[in-house]
Amino acid sequence: MSLGGPLVKIVRTASGAARLCRAPGSVGPLVLVPTMGALHAGHLSLIRKARKLAGPKGTVAVSIFVNPTQFGPKEDFSRYPRPFARDCRLCRDAGVDIVFQPSPQEMYPERYSTYVNEELVSLPLCGKSRPGHFRGVCTVVLKLFNIVGPDIAVFGMKDYQQVAVIRRMTRDLNVPVRIVAAPTVREADGLALSSRNAYLSAEARAQAPVIRRALLLARDAGTVKTAALEKLVRREIGTASLARIDYIEALDADTLEEPGPETGQLLIACAVYFGNTRLIDNILIPYARI
Amino acid sequence: MSLGGPLVKIVRTASGAARLCRAPGSVGPLVLVPTMGALHAGHLSLIRKARKLAGPKGTVAVSIFVNPTQFGPKEDFSRYPRPFARDCRLCRDAGVDIVFQPSPQEMYPERYSTYVNEELVSLPLCGKSRPGHFRGVCTVVLKLFNIVGPDIAVFGMKDYQQVAVIRRMTRDLNVPVRIVAAPTVREADGLALSSRNAYLSAEARAQAPVIRRALLLARDAGTVKTAALEKLVRREIGTASLARIDYIEALDADTLEEPGPETGQLLIACAVYFGNTRLIDNILIPYARI
Repeated sequence: MSLGGPLVKIVRTASGAARLCRAPGSVGPLVLVPTMGALHAGHLSLIRKARKLAGPKGTVAVSIFVNPTQFGPKEDFSRYPRPFARDCRLCRDAGVDIVFQPSPQEMYPERYSTYVNEELVSLPLCGKSRPGHFRGVCTVVLKLFNIVGPDIAVFGMKDYQQVAVIRRMTRDLNVPVRIVAAPTVREADGLALSSRNAYLSAEARAQAPVIRRALLLARDAGTVKTAALEKLVRREIGTASLARIDYIEALDADTLEEPGPETGQLLIACAVYFGNTRLIDNILIPYARI
Repeated sequence: MSLGGPLVKIVRTASGAARLCRAPGSVGPLVLVPTMGALHAGHLSLIRKARKLAGPKGTVAVSIFVNPTQFGPKEDFSRYPRPFARDCRLCRDAGVDIVFQPSPQEMYPERYSTYVNEELVSLPLCGKSRPGHFRGVCTVVLKLFNIVGPDIAVFGMKDYQQVAVIRRMTRDLNVPVRIVAAPTVREADGLALSSRNAYLSAEARAQAPVIRRALLLARDAGTVKTAALEKLVRREIGTASLARIDYIEALDADTLEEPGPETGQLLIACAVYFGNTRLIDNILIPYARI
């Protein structure tokens, strides 16, 4: 079955996706872009990256699955946008070969009972604010890897901690998949692209670029003292009347622990509510530059 | 490097094992037998099974790894037998192609932080007596699967719950490995083979076959009432002066939950201490035969 035209194959079952993706005779690399759909220019940049990594003979697969296990009970799982026909068109136009769009029942059948926990990189930042979130992420990503069997998987740097957690999980569990992270795509005013930006009121949308401005201020502040950096970002974001800060933290960019003598880069990451909409962003700064 | 002769290749690193096991050009199935070493006739029957499943063109890999994460703090990790040279000879003589024998540091490097939890089938029986045991089992088995990349893995039925947990994990995480369970091998007097039998005193060894006798009595008792079956097994094992019962339970053999209308087979499983040595055994009986 193909909704998206002759060039993109759409599968909804794990067995179908496995058959299609692991088809004997395929030669180039198989590259997976896991998404929750509601595709925007950020996702499309990941798909372009995947297309480049796959090369002319390789295969690009995109999964579209709003994963229930990574949402908390009070989060936006049910209202998360699901514009499936549009997503398929975008995939087709971007040169995707395979779209895997399973149902929750297909991914979590009766008596489902196995979860993957990463227990260090998951602890701070979004892990603290969203208990169980990375357990859901690790579980679904490992499932997608096992179903699709990619050589490479591409993730976006906006979800920096997600990439770090998945890298750790992949190393720890010896998953034979190379993880590639692609840069955050932004609106002209600096706001990081996110499917959740669609929830913002006009006024909140106008204020939201304060996040990026604050992170750039920190990057250019000429200090690597974490308390000073956090304070600076907090003060700048505090100038936006609708902003409610969830967290602002500066950590070692590799371990997501407190920076120490082995730290090479500092991550400054934040999560900020505008109304009920929670936005995240981050920036990396060299640690030893001063 | 080969300790075992020209026919068996021995590797100690995950990358080496992955290279060897996923070598391009191999045609037949790759069959893995995960063990903790101290091989006995039970393991050798698994290896024979694996050899048959692999066929003349396939590959049989045996992993030998005493996995620290599946032992509790007061359990026998450090004294668990490790007769590595003997194990390699046995593997060579049994027609094994590859032995993977990693160090704990190779499997659990610095900042190791990812674990796999099965949260239903793991709950009763050994899961109750050995908290964290199946978390360690699931984690190491998934790692071994990812390193070796087998088509099929063979486990022994003596560890019935282990097989059930691994089957569930494999289904839930879409692991593309077929799980095969092979029958328990026994001494002439009925005692199930186990590397831990070597710990038994002469007197305990003489009494230990009571476990099998008790399970056979239950099988032939002409009832499927779980309370009656458990009582019967408990009474019979109680006749052995050195036996200390850890658990005796009759459960649905598929779900390891209380039997119900959908139950096809009943599992009676038990764990019994003789001194510090904990032995397990089990038997299956048809549920609806009466």
